[in-house]
Amino acid sequence: MDDPAPDVSAELPLRDVVAALESLYPLESAADWDRVGLVAGDLDQPVRRILFALDPTLAVIDEARTWGADLLVTHHPLLLRGVHSVATTGAKGASVTALVRSGIALWVGHTNADVADPGVSTVLADALGLATQRPLSTEGAYAVGRVGELPSPMRLAEFADVVAAALPATAGGIRVSGDADAQVRTIAVMGGSGDDRFDDVRASGADVYVTADLRHHPVLEAREESRGGPPFLIDAGHWATESLWLASGRERLLAALEHDPGATRVEARVSAIRTEPWTFVVGANAARADRVAPETGGVS
Amino acid sequence: MDDPAPDVSAELPLRDVVAALESLYPLESAADWDRVGLVAGDLDQPVRRILFALDPTLAVIDEARTWGADLLVTHHPLLLRGVHSVATTGAKGASVTALVRSGIALWVGHTNADVADPGVSTVLADALGLATQRPLSTEGAYAVGRVGELPSPMRLAEFADVVAAALPATAGGIRVSGDADAQVRTIAVMGGSGDDRFDDVRASGADVYVTADLRHHPVLEAREESRGGPPFLIDAGHWATESLWLASGRERLLAALEHDPGATRVEARVSAIRTEPWTFVVGANAARADRVAPETGGVS
Amino acid sequence: MDDPAPDVSAELPLRDVVAALESLYPLESAADWDRVGLVAGDLDQPVRRILFALDPTLAVIDEARTWGADLLVTHHPLLLRGVHSVATTGAKGASVTALVRSGIALWVGHTNADVADPGVSTVLADALGLATQRPLSTEGAYAVGRVGELPSPMRLAEFADVVAAALPATAGGIRVSGDADAQVRTIAVMGGSGDDRFDDVRASGADVYVTADLRHHPVLEAREESRGGPPFLIDAGHWATESLWLASGRERLLAALEHDPGATRVEARVSAIRTEPWTFVVGANAARADRVAPETGGVS
Amino acid sequence: MDDPAPDVSAELPLRDVVAALESLYPLESAADWDRVGLVAGDLDQPVRRILFALDPTLAVIDEARTWGADLLVTHHPLLLRGVHSVATTGAKGASVTALVRSGIALWVGHTNADVADPGVSTVLADALGLATQRPLSTEGAYAVGRVGELPSPMRLAEFADVVAAALPATAGGIRVSGDADAQVRTIAVMGGSGDDRFDDVRASGADVYVTADLRHHPVLEAREESRGGPPFLIDAGHWATESLWLASGRERLLAALEHDPGATRVEARVSAIRTEPWTFVVGANAARADRVAPETGGVS
Amino acid sequence: MDDPAPDVSAELPLRDVVAALESLYPLESAADWDRVGLVAGDLDQPVRRILFALDPTLAVIDEARTWGADLLVTHHPLLLRGVHSVATTGAKGASVTALVRSGIALWVGHTNADVADPGVSTVLADALGLATQRPLSTEGAYAVGRVGELPSPMRLAEFADVVAAALPATAGGIRVSGDADAQVRTIAVMGGSGDDRFDDVRASGADVYVTADLRHHPVLEAREESRGGPPFLIDAGHWATESLWLASGRERLLAALEHDPGATRVEARVSAIRTEPWTFVVGANAARADRVAPETGGVS
Amino acid sequence: MDDPAPDVSAELPLRDVVAALESLYPLESAADWDRVGLVAGDLDQPVRRILFALDPTLAVIDEARTWGADLLVTHHPLLLRGVHSVATTGAKGASVTALVRSGIALWVGHTNADVADPGVSTVLADALGLATQRPLSTEGAYAVGRVGELPSPMRLAEFADVVAAALPATAGGIRVSGDADAQVRTIAVMGGSGDDRFDDVRASGADVYVTADLRHHPVLEAREESRGGPPFLIDAGHWATESLWLASGRERLLAALEHDPGATRVEARVSAIRTEPWTFVVGANAARADRVAPETGGVS
Repeated sequence: MDDPAPDVSAELPLRDVVAALESLYPLESAADWDRVGLVAGDLDQPVRRILFALDPTLAVIDEARTWGADLLVTHHPLLLRGVHSVATTGAKGASVTALVRSGIALWVGHTNADVADPGVSTVLADALGLATQRPLSTEGAYAVGRVGELPSPMRLAEFADVVAAALPATAGGIRVSGDADAQVRTIAVMGGSGDDRFDDVRASGADVYVTADLRHHPVLEAREESRGGPPFLIDAGHWATESLWLASGRERLLAALEHDPGATRVEARVSAIRTEPWTFVVGANAARADRVAPETGGVS
Repeated sequence: MDDPAPDVSAELPLRDVVAALESLYPLESAADWDRVGLVAGDLDQPVRRILFALDPTLAVIDEARTWGADLLVTHHPLLLRGVHSVATTGAKGASVTALVRSGIALWVGHTNADVADPGVSTVLADALGLATQRPLSTEGAYAVGRVGELPSPMRLAEFADVVAAALPATAGGIRVSGDADAQVRTIAVMGGSGDDRFDDVRASGADVYVTADLRHHPVLEAREESRGGPPFLIDAGHWATESLWLASGRERLLAALEHDPGATRVEARVSAIRTEPWTFVVGANAARADRVAPETGGVS
Repeated sequence: MDDPAPDVSAELPLRDVVAALESLYPLESAADWDRVGLVAGDLDQPVRRILFALDPTLAVIDEARTWGADLLVTHHPLLLRGVHSVATTGAKGASVTALVRSGIALWVGHTNADVADPGVSTVLADALGLATQRPLSTEGAYAVGRVGELPSPMRLAEFADVVAAALPATAGGIRVSGDADAQVRTIAVMGGSGDDRFDDVRASGADVYVTADLRHHPVLEAREESRGGPPFLIDAGHWATESLWLASGRERLLAALEHDPGATRVEARVSAIRTEPWTFVVGANAARADRVAPETGGVS
Repeated sequence: MDDPAPDVSAELPLRDVVAALESLYPLESAADWDRVGLVAGDLDQPVRRILFALDPTLAVIDEARTWGADLLVTHHPLLLRGVHSVATTGAKGASVTALVRSGIALWVGHTNADVADPGVSTVLADALGLATQRPLSTEGAYAVGRVGELPSPMRLAEFADVVAAALPATAGGIRVSGDADAQVRTIAVMGGSGDDRFDDVRASGADVYVTADLRHHPVLEAREESRGGPPFLIDAGHWATESLWLASGRERLLAALEHDPGATRVEARVSAIRTEPWTFVVGANAARADRVAPETGGVS
Repeated sequence: MDDPAPDVSAELPLRDVVAALESLYPLESAADWDRVGLVAGDLDQPVRRILFALDPTLAVIDEARTWGADLLVTHHPLLLRGVHSVATTGAKGASVTALVRSGIALWVGHTNADVADPGVSTVLADALGLATQRPLSTEGAYAVGRVGELPSPMRLAEFADVVAAALPATAGGIRVSGDADAQVRTIAVMGGSGDDRFDDVRASGADVYVTADLRHHPVLEAREESRGGPPFLIDAGHWATESLWLASGRERLLAALEHDPGATRVEARVSAIRTEPWTFVVGANAARADRVAPETGGVS
Repeated sequence: MDDPAPDVSAELPLRDVVAALESLYPLESAADWDRVGLVAGDLDQPVRRILFALDPTLAVIDEARTWGADLLVTHHPLLLRGVHSVATTGAKGASVTALVRSGIALWVGHTNADVADPGVSTVLADALGLATQRPLSTEGAYAVGRVGELPSPMRLAEFADVVAAALPATAGGIRVSGDADAQVRTIAVMGGSGDDRFDDVRASGADVYVTADLRHHPVLEAREESRGGPPFLIDAGHWATESLWLASGRERLLAALEHDPGATRVEARVSAIRTEPWTFVVGANAARADRVAPETGGVS
């Protein structure tokens, strides 16, 4: 906040920014279980600097404070489960306390950002170059996930490189399940955790499903159900598949505020912090791709 | 089944093998929600060849059939959720049908194998060289997970290499969350999915928690709760952390059957198939370990 | 399977038979809690002989195996409650194992056969000679049970004889609750267990309700609610009231398959086994019909 | 109430009779879901005549009124489900209204009478001549059902005759499932509806299970589980299997009241009304005992 | 019942009175959880005297009996929770017994009377002189509560006096939460317990909410949510806010029966008993209205 | 905080104060549904001034801020229901924000203070002069409520004056249900809402039950159950019956901290704000105590 002479008459109140965000990502389009919208702050406080980040971690809040942000916009809810205490003994309480003490408001766009267009899934589908996009599924009136076509068929291994090039670099990398040499063209995508959508993916006719947070049992069952064939699976990381949306959200918000008298000097940027939890990986690709383990048991 | 003149008087009935397995891994020690014990087969059928595998996939069943196995022993249940059809239109039905048509019995030791000693967690703890082992937690009368000490403190990065060396090679590799240079000594382990045990891990005083199937939200919340310090987290893969147990189970079963008159010519081996669902990884370690992403958003 | 030279080009795949059955008895017309459709078998296996039976008991499966049936069609589900094991230690597992080992597919038409027209209730109503039939009730879009008129009024006792003559003979017989001399004409019917439909029966104006599995408390409460008058109740047996449908199902299936190239030599028959559980009855009609017991207690 | 000069000083208040009944059949021994004890009446009203009956039907209440009873003791609850109205438009309301208008109290001994000794199951076991009786099962601290031995083995058909001779005559008769010629000796009994106890019966080693209200599906599944062998099943009627207890209850109550000053002229008797709902049976034993139906379907 | 020669031909059966009541207050307009309609009596019994009261207490039933009433009409259900006994040991049983013994029928109009027009809320709104009435909220197709305008703005304290004057006198009085000098005009009303409607009240723009049974926590939270401003709250007593309806119900019933041949000599009146549970109040208005308590703790 | 030269070595950290509070009112003694303990603050922050209040309202928080309190101790939870936002748009969020911005910690002692001895109920019982106190009931290992004896019997009206004199003055006053002239001596008390304890009160033999938040239906049902006799009921106000405890809590906390080196200059006081929601009452005692209303309906 190095601005020596703020023109108070042109202050942009949080109220206006929230209204702009909620015109882009209406709260009523969020899932029933979700908790989106304003989580901290006062609608009358002025907003000068807005930080976009995937997760409201303590490090992100500190980045916001250091930069002098008045508003943090995140994709993931801080208080998805209700809290009964904001004491700093717990991380959630420490986060709330840090936000309130620093006067930083927090607004969350989660499943309402997922289903928007452009939103989390369409931004991901665009980044992968998918054409003729269509919804993977619907929830009520809203589209969930996307299915689209690559410009031309390619090997699964090539497509994995396309994904790696399209997404921000991570420590965790991108895990692939399927025949590296199989030809693929139709791609289903779902930012974040998508292992409850395998039925929709099979029904969509997709060759590959790009999502994240894939665990052993649902993935193995999906692979069994496919009898080794498509749809193949790519776990591209929760942070990586969703963080592409942040730049889109920032851009759309600034556009929405363009004609607001208080918006002339508002700044917005995407956080420089990668909130992927992984630091490094060892031993990847140590086993042969044919899924046959070295013989570990003998014959009596 | 190349045995031309079986001595029927010395046949080992499935009944005896099941009794031996259930003396080692009592069914009543399984969790309430679990489904363990005999899943296919007739207690009177003779058993000559026993295959141990982590998952009863179609490929594993085919391996059993090809080898001439009469009994498949797996860690993961085939029918954890009850089925209403065994038609081959579904993968579960196809597996049941393949087992029954080939005359292969299936016995499952899941949470009853987890809590045994030696069992899934103790075998994993032993493989990592942990001393003074103690339970991570308890469920009813049973120990769940293990906590133990490395022979001497080491860097987290070194310990990750220890884990990689101790476990079978995989495609997916081992993901680490934490400061690579931090010194660690007290290690908590839980084979398979362990992201519902972070409270126990913190209470145990562990420096590192080795488990699998770690997803973005629970891991990030656990890291926030630790404010960046220990316990650090290692996702070493569901298949890798549990498959070590198979050799132990095979060995113990053969010992338990030693004095059975029908056991003289029974064979047992561990499956050569790696049922980890991943085929290959791209882009691991592409991001700097400090979790700061390349700047993706500018200032308006 | 005494057919020496099967013309493979004319094989009828299970896929086609299932499609025909499900055009007659659509799966979506079954109740939510029900489990209908293909329970065992492979859609590509050829079908030459089809056995219709009310219950997939071990004896019925053995009859199918002996006759060389490839497909068993039953009204009652084998796996209404999901199973977690098909080991032969349990009767359900023994049945599944017997079907799979013998290569016999199983298809179930239960509540979807109940609501069809012709279906279980209409076949029963037709057998009793009921005119101007109408639904007893509805569930969603489907009719449940039937109400219709006898050609002319008759005494309840006479009508009981009509029921006995119309249904296959049983060991258990037909139990009647009501005044044997009362005149009746409007008849409600519901194949199988119907003691949860008394409100609908009273609302229908029926003089008699023909159904099965009637227990003491619901029947006595229904009789109390009627103050001794109509609707009178007839428990005609679960097997007897539903097994009439089998011939109808067989006939309709053969008609539906008529133009299928592979159907020219398919055979179908109704099982010769009565799956009513009762073997014999003693002491029926030992008490006077006026429901006054011999005095069993004295005065002190 | 033809007693010209009642000695008021010797009146027996309902309070004393209830206390005596509840010392014999403690309310706390009833199942959680049950509704036993005083259902109508005033603890201060005098009691001169007590009628015992299985069910508080309108006919039984009328019998009580006609005889001048002040108290009706029944086994089955009148208000097992709570009522929100006692208007006479419903049968429950009509019964309550009839009791209250006639000044007749109602006391119910249901599951507390089942588990008593002597109680419903022991009286039934005694009537069948069973020796070395033991509980069939337990619920909490209480015995449920009985298992005992016949003096000598006999054919199942003979035993059915024993049952018929021991129980009061009914219209519905006694249904038997099993081989008429099989030898039986160990008998399990449970008065009333017992089709939720088949696991206990198999565990007890009984050759026959005598109970009532047996429906198609549970009975057929139990017979399948037994693979046609023992335990065989006898449905001897709900009213018949439980009504034996009434005389025992009457006798024990009179004994318990013996020393009460007001009891010298109290009368008690068992109702002359059979509350079995069936009036007559047709067609019993019309089918052959081997459970093979006349062929009803042909071959195309 | 001092009527020596009743003209039986002109008897008014309960059936007709119930039909009239249910045309005014249809049972299907009651809430799902509610229990309304005929609670005691026989549709064929003649009705000569009808007593209206808010609660079917023992004193009210005695008043009905003394006056010779055949029918009691109350707003509150006697058996909202189902009863399993009508023994006089419990108050509900004593009430049922008193009604049945005295031959007094009971009909309840509860939430069906709340939503009627005129009904409980409109009668209350009319008594307070509210113009341009509109629903406070809706439940399904029915209006719940009313909002309307005073003829002119007045101080909250003045409006409290208006309420006191409009309602019957009570012992408990009328509690007010808010600034006595604030100007109020828009008034929301809900007879009986209304502390689950604060969201609707705030949405309605009301200055005051008149209802009853207001407890500490919901009221304090509502006052916090209003930051000390409107809507202010008035707890005017459950009995007082609802009992105004009784005269309306009586009048409408008599009008509805006007043309019934049996109605010429029927009498109806409103009970003279106040069923408010409070007898007297001490210490009201002992504290200053500014909600600052005398200092009760010192400084160490 | 006008202390120019704080001796940092003697600072009393919040950690110590919380430990002292939780030794007096252990968190594990709270009810399962309750939410007690530290709600806001940092265990390392120093504590100099402690304010005790019944409710954490915005006015109380402002009082704390004005006085310079570092810690607010309340009886009622701020976040009994979890919150998903602390934005100031809602009152709960505004309260959290006000606490955090002002650096005021909040600690809640609710049901753990109720069951303590001395605790909310014993302080209330002592204030009323009750001797030979005993628990009204128990929940798990903890006493709930108190029953005790007045020094001598007195009229109910006199006892109401005793209550009024013992409790802090309120606007709402004290409501009494019962015969003003009845003699009472045994008194049951329960601070706050107690209308779910009438069974315990009747079982205790109390003549009067002093509690708060009594609503029409439970009170009227309790009065009916008592047939107009004892236990009589006194609603003495939620705030009044519980606020007596605040001085006890303050005193005990200061004593517990006495030997803490940092405690020498800590101050504590009880809030001067009455958080009773009522401002004034009109029309109390307007009706005759005999509960007979002025006749409001005529005879047709």
